[in-house]
Amino acid sequence: MSDPRPLGVFDSGIGGLTVFRALIERLPAEQILYLGDMARVPYGTKSPETVTRYTRECARFLMHRNIKALVVACNTASALALPALIQELSVPTVGVLQPGARRACAVSVSGRIGVIGTDATIRSGAYASAIRGFKADAEVSSVACPLFVPLAEEGWTEGEVARLVAQQYLAAFDGKRIDTLVLGCTHYPLLKGVISQVLGASIRLVDSAEAVADEAASVLESSGLKSVRQPGDQHHFYVTDSSRRFAEVGTRFLGTPLGRLEQVDITGEV
Amino acid sequence: MSDPRPLGVFDSGIGGLTVFRALIERLPAEQILYLGDMARVPYGTKSPETVTRYTRECARFLMHRNIKALVVACNTASALALPALIQELSVPTVGVLQPGARRACAVSVSGRIGVIGTDATIRSGAYASAIRGFKADAEVSSVACPLFVPLAEEGWTEGEVARLVAQQYLAAFDGKRIDTLVLGCTHYPLLKGVISQVLGASIRLVDSAEAVADEAASVLESSGLKSVRQPGDQHHFYVTDSSRRFAEVGTRFLGTPLGRLEQVDITGEV
Repeated sequence: MSDPRPLGVFDSGIGGLTVFRALIERLPAEQILYLGDMARVPYGTKSPETVTRYTRECARFLMHRNIKALVVACNTASALALPALIQELSVPTVGVLQPGARRACAVSVSGRIGVIGTDATIRSGAYASAIRGFKADAEVSSVACPLFVPLAEEGWTEGEVARLVAQQYLAAFDGKRIDTLVLGCTHYPLLKGVISQVLGASIRLVDSAEAVADEAASVLESSGLKSVRQPGDQHHFYVTDSSRRFAEVGTRFLGTPLGRLEQVDITGEV
Repeated sequence: MSDPRPLGVFDSGIGGLTVFRALIERLPAEQILYLGDMARVPYGTKSPETVTRYTRECARFLMHRNIKALVVACNTASALALPALIQELSVPTVGVLQPGARRACAVSVSGRIGVIGTDATIRSGAYASAIRGFKADAEVSSVACPLFVPLAEEGWTEGEVARLVAQQYLAAFDGKRIDTLVLGCTHYPLLKGVISQVLGASIRLVDSAEAVADEAASVLESSGLKSVRQPGDQHHFYVTDSSRRFAEVGTRFLGTPLGRLEQVDITGEV
């Protein structure tokens, strides 16, 4: 069985391209429709109600383009809106949170796990619950790192400013003796170097992008939805604001220029 | 002649409260309706078209509440959308850009003027044009400082991170011999201390909030729109996302807790 329909991926903006990259490596035969909600980014400073409304509009936009499954690449949207979305959508829906939590539990030896994310993600407590769902006795410490997103978007991912900001936020883990840290925001993998420098190389950093790609692969497999097409330049990027910034910063995220890129209006998509 | 109708003020978020504060000091008899578009903040990373659409919706929301004049407290909106707005609205409309530019020209001795602002504001070139409109031979140097907004919102307005970030951005003025710097974003006055430290106390910092309040006062005066009411607790704050964050960060901006606060939906306001 195979299904040639595209796989939908959405993020509040650019960060989800780390997930996109993991997906095309893991699932090279799939066509991906990526939606970046650049007109309303960031989600991480906004309320659960607003994030849920935006997430719903993004999902519906992609559903109207005949996707066979949806990957919510945004941690904030996954933390706040995934249960509602799963109930409403008629296709399999994968968030970044559960796969990240599962992988953290798999690699942690001590069960003392740190989580960093946006204000909204950390405030939701969703990672801590997900981790305890896989490992009931895990000790989870969570810290919001709001400046990491603008630092990554500005391209200041190394150097003294990045190091100092990381030191200030990550000092909250002093004495917690974590052995694993979940990078609970798709922008954070860009700051891996500086985070490792500050915490020490012995702390394992869990980037949920690869975990999500594995999860998406098994979901497609088990639902008979995989494509058997040959790979090609078939992906499509939609953005809700000017594509200039997306193309600029996106190239930094992907390491290669983006392909087809289109600006769309999704306000009030029903 | 006097007019008891309220004065409308809008900003992409919280930063405009610096303008609000200047207005209530300068015009204590006026009732102010303040709208903060927290659901779509920030504007400074978005395209001219999107900023113009948002600005229009905000203005219309306030127009429907019977304002007698509008102050656009957001520099990005002023830089990108003010001409369109002035054409469309039936009430006097004041932006932050012209008053700030006028004041900079008044205080600069050498005519070498620096401007800092968001990416969108600086990219528009609107400050440079406005300054040259008042002083044709001014030499204007402009630098975008995207991390200043998240720093101010995070409350990291002093200390080593703020100083380092300021050093990196403001190094662009080395050799320009400016004697005046326009703080071209309503968040930046919170970073005055560190900016002065880096540039030296001899550089005059122009905070447009006061200049705007003066401009608004003369517009109301000359149009016969001033109120003669006694002051009271009459202001009203509208936000497009949860009021929690606005109340929290707003208190940091105003120095006192906010008054009446209401969450509203302005999407597609026509």
